[in-house]
Amino acid sequence: MSAVEGLRFAKRIGDIMGKSHDLVELMGLSDAPGIISFAGGFPSPETYPIEDIKETMAEIMREDAAGALSYSSPSGYYELREQIAARMRKNFGLQSRTEEILLVSGSQQGLDLSGLLFIDPGDVVIFETPSYLGALSALKTYEARLVAVGSDEEGMCMDALERAFETYGDRIKLIYVNPDYQNPTGRSWSASRRDEFVAFAERKAVAVIEDAAYAELSYSGEKAKPLISYSKKGFVIYLGTFSKTFCPGLRTGWICCARELLERYLALKANVDLSPATILHRQLSHYLKTRDLDAHIGRVGALYKRRRDIMHEAVRNEFPAEATYSLPGGGLFFWVKLPDRIDSRELFARSVAENVAFMPGGAFYPNAERNCEMRLNFSNMPEGEIIKGIAVLGRLIKEM
Amino acid sequence: MSAVEGLRFAKRIGDIMGKSHDLVELMGLSDAPGIISFAGGFPSPETYPIEDIKETMAEIMREDAAGALSYSSPSGYYELREQIAARMRKNFGLQSRTEEILLVSGSQQGLDLSGLLFIDPGDVVIFETPSYLGALSALKTYEARLVAVGSDEEGMCMDALERAFETYGDRIKLIYVNPDYQNPTGRSWSASRRDEFVAFAERKAVAVIEDAAYAELSYSGEKAKPLISYSKKGFVIYLGTFSKTFCPGLRTGWICCARELLERYLALKANVDLSPATILHRQLSHYLKTRDLDAHIGRVGALYKRRRDIMHEAVRNEFPAEATYSLPGGGLFFWVKLPDRIDSRELFARSVAENVAFMPGGAFYPNAERNCEMRLNFSNMPEGEIIKGIAVLGRLIKEM
Repeated sequence: MSAVEGLRFAKRIGDIMGKSHDLVELMGLSDAPGIISFAGGFPSPETYPIEDIKETMAEIMREDAAGALSYSSPSGYYELREQIAARMRKNFGLQSRTEEILLVSGSQQGLDLSGLLFIDPGDVVIFETPSYLGALSALKTYEARLVAVGSDEEGMCMDALERAFETYGDRIKLIYVNPDYQNPTGRSWSASRRDEFVAFAERKAVAVIEDAAYAELSYSGEKAKPLISYSKKGFVIYLGTFSKTFCPGLRTGWICCARELLERYLALKANVDLSPATILHRQLSHYLKTRDLDAHIGRVGALYKRRRDIMHEAVRNEFPAEATYSLPGGGLFFWVKLPDRIDSRELFARSVAENVAFMPGGAFYPNAERNCEMRLNFSNMPEGEIIKGIAVLGRLIKEM
Repeated sequence: MSAVEGLRFAKRIGDIMGKSHDLVELMGLSDAPGIISFAGGFPSPETYPIEDIKETMAEIMREDAAGALSYSSPSGYYELREQIAARMRKNFGLQSRTEEILLVSGSQQGLDLSGLLFIDPGDVVIFETPSYLGALSALKTYEARLVAVGSDEEGMCMDALERAFETYGDRIKLIYVNPDYQNPTGRSWSASRRDEFVAFAERKAVAVIEDAAYAELSYSGEKAKPLISYSKKGFVIYLGTFSKTFCPGLRTGWICCARELLERYLALKANVDLSPATILHRQLSHYLKTRDLDAHIGRVGALYKRRRDIMHEAVRNEFPAEATYSLPGGGLFFWVKLPDRIDSRELFARSVAENVAFMPGGAFYPNAERNCEMRLNFSNMPEGEIIKGIAVLGRLIKEM
């Protein structure tokens, strides 16, 4: 059609539209009604504290509806920023101040603003592999060259990272990592790797994006110290979110970083959407003040831990012994390695035919170069369905 | 501090942080308590339909809270897109279909996405002068070169526009205009200029952003046909918003354009913030279904028209005869030309000292090159304050 034929777009658009939509189509299949789906990465809607949300929404509207419905500061509702800073201090022993917190529309906007802040076309962004590539689409928008570095049980492999710096040197602008209950592997970085990694990145003067989406979903009660707490120079940017612990639809995440860096993020935030939906910030702030988020997260964690354990037992009983995995200490995912000869895309095709879905491992590698792994989400299906679905997968794997 | 000294940012950041914050400081002065402010460009909070918003919010939460609090499609809530398409058909006689509507976080995000879609560094964006430069900050983020073209009583000057094309040719990627009750002049483009302008832009194969923020705030009852209705090739992108007619805090605007163009906007929207706050879309959609937005806009318009008339009379009585203006047929602003010898920045300094604020005209020119004009907002002050404030300004102008 003419509207597209005649116009000239920015160069970045070629890349964006050229990208395959395999994953989107695949997720479409997983959403069909009646399917047992381990494919998504969503919190379970049954955990939303709906009555409290209704009440707190009504309360803030009663208190100051005009304020809640007007434009507000691009940095976000001040009280909520204060509360988040206090949570960061309490949960992780950080010294965070309110001036180091910027509210964003989910962590995805934090990634988008990071692309704007750091990336010129051709700059290199390092990321762990396997990794949730969806998060990286924000950085591809700014024509970043994405370079994968392998990870082991303790986190990103330091020797592989050093080799990447030998190859790309100053073209490296950012490293994106997900050190707690990583998506897709469920792994958490060791304390010593965190320390070594942050010291290395700061020596190289490269910014680190710490995507902490799952950090508060610990099933052991322990919380690892975030990368930002190892930072000496202020080059670590922490992205937090209420999407996994509270509700994704309120679209409230935050950036926590050194004040001088935050000022740059703020200037960009004002340019991209001017003002946040302050009604949502006020609702959340009022909830934090008058309800008990930690107790809520405790309940969510107890449910997910139970589902994790059910899935663990089912996988142990139903999958062949050649399938290996480690028990995730938090987050939403099991990552299972199948024997090399099994292609998880083929397994997916067969299991969807029997109304069971999961994410084939290739989706988490830049060129789908490993296909013998699978990601299983355990947060979103009731226990009976977990047992039934894993039994189907186990049988199909054995048949293959 | 080290966090900023050691890191390397994208090139675009120099421009963004280097920009003067005069305007921000000035607006700060205008917000002080007790001041009579004609400086802002906001709708008046007393017009918000607060009870209806409370009720509809409670209703959608009762109906499907889990849906309202979950992730949703990046294109926005389908029913609201349908309703907006229907409004565009009814209000402006367009043939808009749902697939041509994308919901965005206020028109500012529509501008941001337009920058992403069209602008490579150094590309030229044409805009009217005087113009609300704040809107253009989104495009500056993408290192656009902003080129001003003068306007007259009928709209953008076609001969000046042709000269700009002679100078910049293919480097021109976008033209940004505000054809209804323009900010700051309050002027609306004539039908013949709209026709001529769109035909010219489409001949040149350049995209036009039609910022229609004030289009529904007509005080004569007449609504001009938007630029997009003159389009033959689909190169006009219409940005609508509920911020001026309903509430700015719900952050709901829309892009209306050809479907093939919209698909590109959608891919970018998913990258920048993944999912909208669907609770806000559902609230607005339910309001549109069960209440009467047109009646609400009618009441808002009646209030603003009364304030416009009060301000008109006050200006006529209090300002010297050398001050000229034309009566705006809609929108939020009077634009007054003072005698050349009067510097409106000097007038501002004196009036703020007497607790009356307005926007000096220089703020609407790229290099503050004309300073004998002033923008007066009439929507946001009660009638008595309008009369008092204009009397102060009139006296000060006469003294100068």
